[in-house]
Amino acid sequence: MNPNLRAALAAYRVVIGDEQVVIEREALSCYETATFHTDHRVVAVLKPGSVEQVQQCMAISTQYSVATYPISTGKNVGYGSRVPTSDNCVVLELKRLNRILEFNEDLAYVSLEPGVTQQQLFNFLKEKNSNLWMDATGSFLEHSIIGNIAERGFGHTPFADHFNNVGGMDVVLANGKLLHTGFGRFGNAKAAGVYRWGVGPYLDGLFAQSNLGIITRVTLWLMPAPEYCQNFFFSMNQSDELAEVIELLRPLRLDGTIKSAMHIGNDYKVISSIRRYPWEESQGEVPLSKELLAKLAEKWDFGAWNASGSLYGSKQEVALARKRIKKQLKGRVKKLRFLDEDMLRLAEKLQKPYRWLTGVNLPEMLKLLKPIFGLTTGVPTGKMIASTYWRKKQDAPSDPDPDRDRCGLMWLAPVAPTKGQYAQEIWSIVESTMLKYAFEPAVSITLITERAMDCVVCISYDRDVVGEDERAQQCHDEMLEKLTASGYYPYRLGVHSMGGLPRAEESSIELLIAIKDVLDSKRVLAPGRYQDD
Amino acid sequence: MNPNLRAALAAYRVVIGDEQVVIEREALSCYETATFHTDHRVVAVLKPGSVEQVQQCMAISTQYSVATYPISTGKNVGYGSRVPTSDNCVVLELKRLNRILEFNEDLAYVSLEPGVTQQQLFNFLKEKNSNLWMDATGSFLEHSIIGNIAERGFGHTPFADHFNNVGGMDVVLANGKLLHTGFGRFGNAKAAGVYRWGVGPYLDGLFAQSNLGIITRVTLWLMPAPEYCQNFFFSMNQSDELAEVIELLRPLRLDGTIKSAMHIGNDYKVISSIRRYPWEESQGEVPLSKELLAKLAEKWDFGAWNASGSLYGSKQEVALARKRIKKQLKGRVKKLRFLDEDMLRLAEKLQKPYRWLTGVNLPEMLKLLKPIFGLTTGVPTGKMIASTYWRKKQDAPSDPDPDRDRCGLMWLAPVAPTKGQYAQEIWSIVESTMLKYAFEPAVSITLITERAMDCVVCISYDRDVVGEDERAQQCHDEMLEKLTASGYYPYRLGVHSMGGLPRAEESSIELLIAIKDVLDSKRVLAPGRYQDD
Repeated sequence: MNPNLRAALAAYRVVIGDEQVVIEREALSCYETATFHTDHRVVAVLKPGSVEQVQQCMAISTQYSVATYPISTGKNVGYGSRVPTSDNCVVLELKRLNRILEFNEDLAYVSLEPGVTQQQLFNFLKEKNSNLWMDATGSFLEHSIIGNIAERGFGHTPFADHFNNVGGMDVVLANGKLLHTGFGRFGNAKAAGVYRWGVGPYLDGLFAQSNLGIITRVTLWLMPAPEYCQNFFFSMNQSDELAEVIELLRPLRLDGTIKSAMHIGNDYKVISSIRRYPWEESQGEVPLSKELLAKLAEKWDFGAWNASGSLYGSKQEVALARKRIKKQLKGRVKKLRFLDEDMLRLAEKLQKPYRWLTGVNLPEMLKLLKPIFGLTTGVPTGKMIASTYWRKKQDAPSDPDPDRDRCGLMWLAPVAPTKGQYAQEIWSIVESTMLKYAFEPAVSITLITERAMDCVVCISYDRDVVGEDERAQQCHDEMLEKLTASGYYPYRLGVHSMGGLPRAEESSIELLIAIKDVLDSKRVLAPGRYQDD
Repeated sequence: MNPNLRAALAAYRVVIGDEQVVIEREALSCYETATFHTDHRVVAVLKPGSVEQVQQCMAISTQYSVATYPISTGKNVGYGSRVPTSDNCVVLELKRLNRILEFNEDLAYVSLEPGVTQQQLFNFLKEKNSNLWMDATGSFLEHSIIGNIAERGFGHTPFADHFNNVGGMDVVLANGKLLHTGFGRFGNAKAAGVYRWGVGPYLDGLFAQSNLGIITRVTLWLMPAPEYCQNFFFSMNQSDELAEVIELLRPLRLDGTIKSAMHIGNDYKVISSIRRYPWEESQGEVPLSKELLAKLAEKWDFGAWNASGSLYGSKQEVALARKRIKKQLKGRVKKLRFLDEDMLRLAEKLQKPYRWLTGVNLPEMLKLLKPIFGLTTGVPTGKMIASTYWRKKQDAPSDPDPDRDRCGLMWLAPVAPTKGQYAQEIWSIVESTMLKYAFEPAVSITLITERAMDCVVCISYDRDVVGEDERAQQCHDEMLEKLTASGYYPYRLGVHSMGGLPRAEESSIELLIAIKDVLDSKRVLAPGRYQDD
């Protein structure tokens, strides 16, 4: 152990206590394990219990030049989980900072620490009998709200673009100083957290997808629960109908008929959300054959592309939006259906007659529809995680842990303007590349904002199959290269993709390096994380 | 003239041509004139004609350490017009960069240069027969869209928060390098301008309300024209009803019933928008007496506070919103009225019978209502500028120019969470302070976002009255001090208020200085502009 690290560890122990400094090899190995191959070693894990301790730890890290990688709850699954973006880091785990610091029902916001999980915020709002909704993701119940914001993750309601609903932040800098953004830099400002721009430069943007600071508090805006919410679903039978449908949806998203981030998943995506890989039917062959996929699609009644969205408002407002959607999509899509909570409850009761009436395999589809409906109303779900076991030989256990169980998973999520031709072009790159590597090209396209869509590609495999780690990484890298060469850049990177982008313009690289230099001259904070040099 | 400046001027001339470098005293004096006293001298004005020339000018400024102050069209009226925030600057006027570089009807955006004015963009959209609306302000037709964005100005439609609709920027740095933000840093990225966050840190926030770069291009998102738009108006007779009404409006703003930035102006604000100061009736006395104000209010039928807002959507959607507003405000406000384009046209035809039926002085009120309706549908207006002549002894000329005509005007616009008690507290500070200095406390409160309101205070006076410049500045400074002491900070500063804020926390000051140091180590770019040291 180098003497600097030794001295730093001693100093950390003084600050946060011996038991909060982990250096046992076995314990550390969890922090070196993701859903794909990584070879970054972790030298210690620090578990501070307060913002002051985070500040002191960072001051020590800077003093002794110890690379320090902050994580919240470490559930960045498919992007690297808890694994740092560079070798030999001390991991700074912020799980214990799990307080909800402020709650304002009238102004519809909550202020929280990085250890606060989706489930925790959901329970909190329920306990408060709040009329406010959070926006949830389909990831772990235990995933950190701030961790997700720091990656600019997204969800399912009109508040889906998480970073876009941040009213202000507290940030610990590499030197240990604490910064309040926006009006927060004035101690007594009443509008801190409510009016995000403040006065003077707006700095929040510097601290998402960066290694310039550690977010220790976020004021998050919440959505007043609407009177009524109705989901809608439809499908397309032919893969090449996608472009046309995207063109039909764009005006609805732009004019606010559809206010939420709607999702369009392909057949591969749907089947991997319903069940594991059909090892028996395929006689162990990969990738899934088109014939078998067609059979499964028929059985569960899904199409080549399957869209789901949600409408919000009074019952009358939703009825108007529904009418407009029907008019716009009439004759252009299959099986346009609307579903609300009452219908969902009824469907559960009447699963068999419903199937008889509609031909839909309701019991199985309900497994998928219920959590989707929940997500569109701000209810987090743990049900989606099972899909990470797609290529495994056993079903997901009751306590799924894809890191532990060697599930293979890598995300790649290119963004494009919401135009049919772009969706088609991305799909064509993804399909051909993934099939070449014998992976199922499972894709969902999210109309994340009024003008942009995010094509989330999932490379799902079994890490226990020899050579698959390498093959998945190759597949990913080739796809990323082709996509960026065609102008489609991911909205987010992981340990597997950090540094995989083409070189940006020099002026932007220089600027980011210069800012990094002044904020963290010793480069101790999360080296390699979204860093261009 | 110092030799550095001499050498720089020679270099500028080579780059942009002799005729684009202005040093004649008389011409310069326009750049030293605002609607209040300033004593910053301007040593030259540069008028580059392209981004490349802006880059070259900045490289020269940095080389010769010449303080350089960029303006767009210089219509920052009430905040300093064209006057730099420090003495002895070269003004870099970007008026000639007036191209609309890209227009995308499908994706609802336009990309433009700093010389593009409100009127120009409006005309452009009309010529294109576009179904898209811009968001306009009540300021000059010739004001720069980018200039307004750079100050985070706001307007009247659901796209009122201008900076919030920026999809990406090009920025010239102090060293002359050109930076593209967001995905724009990758030359071929299709989502540049459409998905603003890009990948990695989001930098746009650094360049609004700052002196860290010169915005030379903005991609601005536009609003698809709704099927229908209806304005609504109501008033309160008692000043102390304000708090209650704010409480009633907040839920409507939060739940999206009211999607736009609604405005609530007090009696002083309304009367100064309709006519000049009643010098005759008041026998030359200032400030306006409560009695006379009451008489004028009766004549024109306005209340102590007067709200206007707008509803957007299909006719049926607007009807639903109207119903909800009526229900929420019933019995709590006076004269809740709804007005659309057809009614406005009809009213113009039937001015006299309408007055007879309703008692409203329609001809005069129409002067105000028509431009307001226009603003809520993205139509800029030059009509509002006349109000800057409030305290002058003559009416505004047909070509109003408050700088030239020595109109006195200072804005002060504190932000607060949308809570009645805060509106009341701000109003109480403003009223008492302004009356003490014998100015009319003209205020409009804008519910700028779902959670925040902006109380725009207008100090309007006559610069030709001896001592008024000083008195206005004193009044402003005292008000700013009281407001910030109570936690109400302005959303924006001007030459008259730059440096007037209490000291922010050290960590934020250090951070901003450090960033300034690396981006502009010679401090040539807009010294003193939103700068904390």
